[in-house]
Amino acid sequence: MSHVEPVLLARAALSRLIEPSDTVGQALVAAAGPETAALVASGRQRAGTTLRRDMESLLEERGVRGTDRVFAEALARWLPRTADLAPQRDLQTVHRFGGRMLVPEDSDWPAALADLGQSMPFCLWSRGQGTIPELGQCLALVGSRDATSYGLATTGDLSAGLVQRGRTVISGGAYGIDAQAHRSALAVSGSRTGSDKRAAPDGIRPSAGGSTETSTLAVLAGGVDRLYPAGNDDLLRAVAETGLILSEVPPGSAPTRWRFLQRNRIIAALAAATVVVEARWRSGALNTAHHAAELGRGVGAVPGSVYSANSAGCHRLLRDGSAVCVTDAAEALELANPFALAPEDDGGRDRAGVPADHDGLSVEDILLLDALPLRKAVPPQKLSAVAGLGAAAVRAGLARLELSGLARRTGDGLWQRGERPPVHPSTTRPPSKGD
Amino acid sequence: MSHVEPVLLARAALSRLIEPSDTVGQALVAAAGPETAALVASGRQRAGTTLRRDMESLLEERGVRGTDRVFAEALARWLPRTADLAPQRDLQTVHRFGGRMLVPEDSDWPAALADLGQSMPFCLWSRGQGTIPELGQCLALVGSRDATSYGLATTGDLSAGLVQRGRTVISGGAYGIDAQAHRSALAVSGSRTGSDKRAAPDGIRPSAGGSTETSTLAVLAGGVDRLYPAGNDDLLRAVAETGLILSEVPPGSAPTRWRFLQRNRIIAALAAATVVVEARWRSGALNTAHHAAELGRGVGAVPGSVYSANSAGCHRLLRDGSAVCVTDAAEALELANPFALAPEDDGGRDRAGVPADHDGLSVEDILLLDALPLRKAVPPQKLSAVAGLGAAAVRAGLARLELSGLARRTGDGLWQRGERPPVHPSTTRPPSKGD
Repeated sequence: MSHVEPVLLARAALSRLIEPSDTVGQALVAAAGPETAALVASGRQRAGTTLRRDMESLLEERGVRGTDRVFAEALARWLPRTADLAPQRDLQTVHRFGGRMLVPEDSDWPAALADLGQSMPFCLWSRGQGTIPELGQCLALVGSRDATSYGLATTGDLSAGLVQRGRTVISGGAYGIDAQAHRSALAVSGSRTGSDKRAAPDGIRPSAGGSTETSTLAVLAGGVDRLYPAGNDDLLRAVAETGLILSEVPPGSAPTRWRFLQRNRIIAALAAATVVVEARWRSGALNTAHHAAELGRGVGAVPGSVYSANSAGCHRLLRDGSAVCVTDAAEALELANPFALAPEDDGGRDRAGVPADHDGLSVEDILLLDALPLRKAVPPQKLSAVAGLGAAAVRAGLARLELSGLARRTGDGLWQRGERPPVHPSTTRPPSKGD
Repeated sequence: MSHVEPVLLARAALSRLIEPSDTVGQALVAAAGPETAALVASGRQRAGTTLRRDMESLLEERGVRGTDRVFAEALARWLPRTADLAPQRDLQTVHRFGGRMLVPEDSDWPAALADLGQSMPFCLWSRGQGTIPELGQCLALVGSRDATSYGLATTGDLSAGLVQRGRTVISGGAYGIDAQAHRSALAVSGSRTGSDKRAAPDGIRPSAGGSTETSTLAVLAGGVDRLYPAGNDDLLRAVAETGLILSEVPPGSAPTRWRFLQRNRIIAALAAATVVVEARWRSGALNTAHHAAELGRGVGAVPGSVYSANSAGCHRLLRDGSAVCVTDAAEALELANPFALAPEDDGGRDRAGVPADHDGLSVEDILLLDALPLRKAVPPQKLSAVAGLGAAAVRAGLARLELSGLARRTGDGLWQRGERPPVHPSTTRPPSKGD
């Protein structure tokens, strides 16, 4: 690597010196720009009064008072790390792993991250051949690490269904739900072909370009050279091969608790919708859902047994109204494309609020049908009394019911129930999923 | 039965002549009053011009035009039934079955039914010793007849939990969910004592008076003398013994499809909230939920497996926002008493939207904790570089972590991770249900 743009070196340095979501660091970069910010953060340049004043207003926007004090504390946080500062080496490392560093100055920097405002990462260290698809193409599937067989099954179906529709599944590379989301996406992408995609059942064409070739994308809390957890090493290598691995912290960085929490905001920002598949009452997945809601992204939750502690977090989101109930990939897609046409592969379920209660029969026909005996035939006058219908209504109704096969004339003007079995409302079968 | 008030005989006759929710019949009674209405509906008195004009305006309120025509059709519906008219006998029959007829003129007519407006039933034929509790005391549990073991389990737990809290469980006496709701309520009421009630975990005292002694209440689509379905005969007899059975149609009436649908509006009106426990994509239970929503009552749905067609109806309600997710009796009660204090028996679950992600530790403490090695102790300067914290922050943080047992001093000023195991956000256990 001969010449490296100064901005790359600057942002690489910033991501080494400053922890993710460091408010003061973000204000510094916003006020001074990356290159000056790197010099200031590493103590090689003092912050002038103009810069301090600009930072002050930026920090006050976010409710932070006493710029001088917090800035001094910030420098005290950053300076101890200057010893480890070697941006050139970090860039070489990530290249060695077949990756690169993405910066906001790049044309292919994901526009969706701008929604994070000042919390936008300084840069993204990537690993893999894939690219980051546009927002509408990406959905995040997140959940607990201690998943149940139910959670793994629903995650697998959702992930496969989304990739079959040409979408990219984003997750965090953790055990449990995350791993299943990546694994299932990779499995489908292997078999996916262009024609499959054109046949995407929801009728929404995948976006042009190779973006949808990236079936899955993992955002890690540590460096992209340190695949974590170790147990997912092979899986994450496979993600890097056909998909992409991202992190805002430089190579060698440990996946600390703090970085896990901040990582979640990037998953939420890159995806048009985040679906929590399985989560306990308290779970990091809820943190990701919260970030998604703050960003105005779609938030979904998969329902489960009320006896499963692993679904308590999902039910909590459904109950407080911060998530929409999602039971399959088509419904997940509606979250990402709320204005798209209703899926055609929804088993013909009508989207009307209230189901038809009596198979489209008129009130009079229902009364008449109820009055028709199954076995012995009766005269219209009898039907009139039992059904509580006038003679004319009975005549007209019998004609209609006879057409639909619900009433049968037995000769000499007597009538009885037709062959077509009546359907009781509370047992009417849906022409739908699961049946 | 020596003397019977004319209004009783009139309303008994009306309920025999006119099908539930007959718009014209409702307008007639509203305009003429029950006694005149009975004479007109049975053809023993002609409707004068004043009455017709009053009916016209009432019908126009409900979008019905052409009063003369619809009224003629209505009379044609009603008159054929005059032959079976014997209100005195009907009243004797229901008394023989240990019941009575409730009319709006009675002091104990349930006020909640007034919310039905013109659709309020003409009367309620009752059977049993129980009374109808006030609205706030009643919750409806409804669902499909073809219930799964999961649906039966959740219904049983909800019903028992509600009765333990002194509430009355209303349902429709059908197979499946309905039967389980009644059965479970009866089982608990047998064991329930006053002290149990005072100990109602949600802290809401059952209302004074014997009303809460009525553990369960069945609203039938047919006559109270014809317990339907036959397979629930014993169960419904038991309901009549300690609880109450209601119907708006007179003794001997068949439970027709039309009457099932109209029955649902009475269940919805008598209950402060209706919870759909298990329902297919199309189910009569959704019809009851729809009535409840129209009446401004609470509507809840119990989540279940996305692979269970018997939960598809519940997920549909959750998805379109017409129902709140209900996973236990305490949450069902919140629907009925939205302004009551949050239940105390909810496993200590905090009601805050977002869960705490890092056990209440400050950001700096988390960074520091992450930097502390598990085995070999390190000097504060090293922690300062790794954690990205100033020397002062490190000193203060170490003191805090030492107090909470998360950091340990090894002598000669070195530090390492304390005994208390750190908790990763995404595996933080909820102090809650299921655990």
